[in-house]
Amino acid sequence: MDHKVLDGLLKPKSIAVIGASTKEGKIGYTVVKNLVESQYEGEVYPINPKADEILGFKAYPSVLDVPGDIDAAVVVIPAKYVPQATEECGKKGVKGLIVIASGFSEVGRKDLEEQVVAIAHQYGMRVLGPNIVGILSNSDKCNASFAPILPLPGKAALVSQSGALLIAMDTSTYTRRVGFDKLVSIGNMSDVNFGDMVEWLNANENTACISLYVEGLKDGRHFMEAARSASKPIIALKSGVSAHGAAAAASHTGSLAGSGKIYESAFEQAGVVQASDLNNLFDRTQVLSLQPPMKGDNMLIITNGGGVGVLATDAAERYGVPLRFAPEDVQAELKKHMPEFGSAKNPVDLTGMAGREWYQESTRYAFAHPWVDGLVILYCETAMTDPMNIAQGIYEAVQESGITDKPITVSFVGGEKSEAAIQWLVENGIPAYDAPDIAVNALSALHEYAESREQATTPFERFDDVDEAAARAVIAKVRAHHDRNMTEVESKQIFAAYGLPVANTKLATSEEEAVALAEEMGYPIVMKIMSPDILHKSDAGGVKVNIKDEAGLRAAYRTILENAKAYKVDADIHGVAIQEMAPWGTEVILGSVNDPTFGPTVMFGLGGIFVEILKDVTFRVAPVSANQSMKMLADIKGAPILAGARGEAPRDREALAEVLSRYSQMITELGDEIAESDANPVLVYEEGQGVTVVDARIILKKKEA
Amino acid sequence: MDHKVLDGLLKPKSIAVIGASTKEGKIGYTVVKNLVESQYEGEVYPINPKADEILGFKAYPSVLDVPGDIDAAVVVIPAKYVPQATEECGKKGVKGLIVIASGFSEVGRKDLEEQVVAIAHQYGMRVLGPNIVGILSNSDKCNASFAPILPLPGKAALVSQSGALLIAMDTSTYTRRVGFDKLVSIGNMSDVNFGDMVEWLNANENTACISLYVEGLKDGRHFMEAARSASKPIIALKSGVSAHGAAAAASHTGSLAGSGKIYESAFEQAGVVQASDLNNLFDRTQVLSLQPPMKGDNMLIITNGGGVGVLATDAAERYGVPLRFAPEDVQAELKKHMPEFGSAKNPVDLTGMAGREWYQESTRYAFAHPWVDGLVILYCETAMTDPMNIAQGIYEAVQESGITDKPITVSFVGGEKSEAAIQWLVENGIPAYDAPDIAVNALSALHEYAESREQATTPFERFDDVDEAAARAVIAKVRAHHDRNMTEVESKQIFAAYGLPVANTKLATSEEEAVALAEEMGYPIVMKIMSPDILHKSDAGGVKVNIKDEAGLRAAYRTILENAKAYKVDADIHGVAIQEMAPWGTEVILGSVNDPTFGPTVMFGLGGIFVEILKDVTFRVAPVSANQSMKMLADIKGAPILAGARGEAPRDREALAEVLSRYSQMITELGDEIAESDANPVLVYEEGQGVTVVDARIILKKKEA
Repeated sequence: MDHKVLDGLLKPKSIAVIGASTKEGKIGYTVVKNLVESQYEGEVYPINPKADEILGFKAYPSVLDVPGDIDAAVVVIPAKYVPQATEECGKKGVKGLIVIASGFSEVGRKDLEEQVVAIAHQYGMRVLGPNIVGILSNSDKCNASFAPILPLPGKAALVSQSGALLIAMDTSTYTRRVGFDKLVSIGNMSDVNFGDMVEWLNANENTACISLYVEGLKDGRHFMEAARSASKPIIALKSGVSAHGAAAAASHTGSLAGSGKIYESAFEQAGVVQASDLNNLFDRTQVLSLQPPMKGDNMLIITNGGGVGVLATDAAERYGVPLRFAPEDVQAELKKHMPEFGSAKNPVDLTGMAGREWYQESTRYAFAHPWVDGLVILYCETAMTDPMNIAQGIYEAVQESGITDKPITVSFVGGEKSEAAIQWLVENGIPAYDAPDIAVNALSALHEYAESREQATTPFERFDDVDEAAARAVIAKVRAHHDRNMTEVESKQIFAAYGLPVANTKLATSEEEAVALAEEMGYPIVMKIMSPDILHKSDAGGVKVNIKDEAGLRAAYRTILENAKAYKVDADIHGVAIQEMAPWGTEVILGSVNDPTFGPTVMFGLGGIFVEILKDVTFRVAPVSANQSMKMLADIKGAPILAGARGEAPRDREALAEVLSRYSQMITELGDEIAESDANPVLVYEEGQGVTVVDARIILKKKEA
Repeated sequence: MDHKVLDGLLKPKSIAVIGASTKEGKIGYTVVKNLVESQYEGEVYPINPKADEILGFKAYPSVLDVPGDIDAAVVVIPAKYVPQATEECGKKGVKGLIVIASGFSEVGRKDLEEQVVAIAHQYGMRVLGPNIVGILSNSDKCNASFAPILPLPGKAALVSQSGALLIAMDTSTYTRRVGFDKLVSIGNMSDVNFGDMVEWLNANENTACISLYVEGLKDGRHFMEAARSASKPIIALKSGVSAHGAAAAASHTGSLAGSGKIYESAFEQAGVVQASDLNNLFDRTQVLSLQPPMKGDNMLIITNGGGVGVLATDAAERYGVPLRFAPEDVQAELKKHMPEFGSAKNPVDLTGMAGREWYQESTRYAFAHPWVDGLVILYCETAMTDPMNIAQGIYEAVQESGITDKPITVSFVGGEKSEAAIQWLVENGIPAYDAPDIAVNALSALHEYAESREQATTPFERFDDVDEAAARAVIAKVRAHHDRNMTEVESKQIFAAYGLPVANTKLATSEEEAVALAEEMGYPIVMKIMSPDILHKSDAGGVKVNIKDEAGLRAAYRTILENAKAYKVDADIHGVAIQEMAPWGTEVILGSVNDPTFGPTVMFGLGGIFVEILKDVTFRVAPVSANQSMKMLADIKGAPILAGARGEAPRDREALAEVLSRYSQMITELGDEIAESDANPVLVYEEGQGVTVVDARIILKKKEA
């Protein structure tokens, strides 16, 4: 991506406001006023053919009349005039457009939006929006938006797909005390999308944490790549995860809100931390912009109240970082800073008598101890102790410890004095909250960040022993003959080309050929009708299992063909597949879809009731490396089955993980051809005994004639 | 319960402070000072043998020297002196003791605590505590505690098992703007427990909502009864639900924190709404003290921003009240109060242009519409509209509608202006929050309240056709012979006495008797070793199934006895059970435990992997009425199996629910004898075909010799 062009758009040294107005209350007036009030130091050129000057700036009829260079043009004219304005901006050499104007794809005028982008790209310009609030930046003293004020200064940057929410969050930064350097309204994302913003903000020196409000990505893969490559923490609040919510999001932004489950996986795969709701977005943005990742599982909690300690302990389990007792030496040292009836376990209960000294001593000691990977300090306001004093003790302990690669979060429950202490801590770089579970949730965000970063930065190691050409040859043959449904034999040829262990299956086009194939494979065998017109083979009476000899085979061959003709008289019948009978194993299912946002996406689950009744499946955007595949196997509720539950030997998870990875490579590399596929059942044997794909199915994409 | 005595304790007209101190900083000084500062209007008697007066009150050496009557005595002397002080209070005719003093069961001195209560009860006194902060009441202008200040006035009452948390929540009521009339610290609950407090607060005119922080109940059944009988909403935050958290709670209060799952069921059965964390306790307390229950499932959301609308929609699904689209007439009317590009579906999006008028009109219309069961109004602060103005519009609309039996909640996202509007709304009786999902969660609390109230007030209808005497006769026989493990035949006799459909099973004590019984029952039959010393019959080679004729039976009889002797040479063998072979059905499991907090508790789950791998079980405190049993069947993840999944006919859930209810009655009525029991497997047949208990097991309680 060309950062220089986006620099012009997002960090402009000069701004034209196309549609600047002399009338208070108009957005075209507000934008100019906001530039003034934010003390913007660049050039401002109001564009308005009917005005001479606006708020002290000389006005011009067109950007073409402006004497100096223009980095960014804020566009606040009616939609229908935007293409022409874009043309003029292009001629003028403007770098980017901030299109506040609405009336585009959100009201069905996608064509107009595309026209604007096409013109912009001709001239090498980028387009932010349309249908946005604008951009706000503290470090650039630039409020090029109709949001009322620059946000509370801080180190985070927010990119929001909802304009109303951005404005509300803007003012809300002051009451919530979470600081942002930048707010960017991204709107319809006709051109500049979330991936672009992540790349640009990752390179931006004033951004420590990238915070996203996402209704639906338009650039799933690009976003994931950008996020994976980023060195700064990214946090996303994805809305529209409920069925009804997705419908509401679609009507509101014209963007396709994908399945919540796939988004969740994609974010995790890309190292993006997720927020559960709006307050959680603020809380986690704060912690991610102030503290380092938590690289380990040992969370230690220090408290002056047993009650909040227990609440925090519950929260730790809820948020995936269950507490463990601290080792003996830690307990022994901490025992020195509490009365007899305190507890040095975890939570460490200093008791209500704890003042600044006990807090400071125990924080300093615990923070520096190598066993501790992250520290949560809880304080309940008491009449005997002063919150600010405690806060200063905590801060000094952290300073004195000299530790900077380990996180700490704090909770003060109390009144105005506690509020003031919270604010002071935040201003001094220590995330502090008003409830114990929030402090724990914040630390767990840093834990999730460390964990998903590790996953995200593990590259996919491609299997080189695959024969893509062979696979494409099978596909070409299928496309030549019929349309999209590949038979089991054809599907298995593709699977086999990617090194997937399919049960030996061959097509017999005559009874004699069937006999010969069975002889070669050895009885018992399975027989199945092969026809692109018969997808549900069993329903058509087209499957016979456990055929033990030639006589049985000949009888079955005839019955299968008769049944198939009775089922669908004009079916295109390729013949009958002869397949070796696989021994019993644990049934699992692999599947793939072509997600509209993320493209090839792989699904894994156990067979039978697990998939049918419990919908116990897990998704990943493909491809998935072997260690990610192992994680998929552990993700499902039925995971103990594979680990060897109920006295049975563990299943061959390593082999299964390789199968998953190879399958994910197959659907990725053939992503231009494969619409969906599945392998069902796949039988998994005991450790070392491998896996067999018993049945496979591929449906090709629709193609233009 | 004697309310008059508790009135004296909790609403005292005169208070003695035993251990009142002249030294600032001492708790005995703080309590007297707090009574002064809260402008307490009753008599105050400091008790201190070494002082003449404290803070203007004449001091006395002992309560026995006080001239007037004493309602409550606040006790702040060292633990070891408390028994004597209690004795003196009794003689003086004090009604109740508020024992702030610590050093009792929380440090292993349960004996001292029991001594105090025993003395108190001799004199008809009640004891609050020990190990507490005290009591605070706005309506009584009484701060008889060492918490710094009376809470923000309001209609809720908080009872907290954690003192530190109570103090912190006290000051926090001001910053969180949630009002309380009373705060009661309940501490070690040596006498006055949560059930007592619920009963008393339910009768108290100044309490609209009862809010509880619970680490562990000591009076499970009493609490449930009190909650069921209450006419006011009750909300509980139960801490110590994680394994590690329960351990922390136990070390801190000396109270047994039961399994989170059973607490959850017990609360729901008793109509108690639950809070997920500390902020949620505040948020839900606010809504429950201000708004009526939501009697129906139709939640309508009105918003000026699509983004918060989608977040609220997601939240509605998350909190169990998924949105539906409003009917046509509602949509048509609402369309009048929004621009063309607004949406009248649900959420109703008035767009960012919405000012007071649109909010007011649409709120008034929607609130009055019979389809709407509850309303959530969302507002994102914009530069063009004034939050207070919008708030007033919403308030007026609610007033004008005249509706008082339907709830409304509000969310304003924004800065200081929004904060002021939120505060104004709350002061005017409309719960308002700073994030959309919180407003939705609050409404869902009112929905949960309505739902669980209905369940809680449905009485258990006892089955009268049971033969308790017969069951007790079997138990007596078992107790006479051996100790606690009942054999299957004995257990099934108990089950049968309670009308449970056990598979026909009879004990054969000789081979000939076995032949005769099998003849009578008809082949095929099942045979099982019967011995109180062999619990795992299969492991001992003590089970033979599908015996088809006499020869098979005779052979099996001998083999079973041989195996049993080989398994345990000195086993007390009753004989061999002959059982009809039940046809195949869906396997389910019933179980019971004697929960230390709630007593007889019933468990239900599906058999096989559902219970073994997925731990897919649900609990209820026994007994459970048939409609609650039906709810249990629906509660498990495997519920679709019973409903008839995978092309199978629905199972006989009605018969199964009756079995569950009868079983729950059995374990309740025989609760003095039965420690635990199970029925595993129970086979469930198609609708109308009933249920068969194939195996049953009862373990009796340990009894003193």
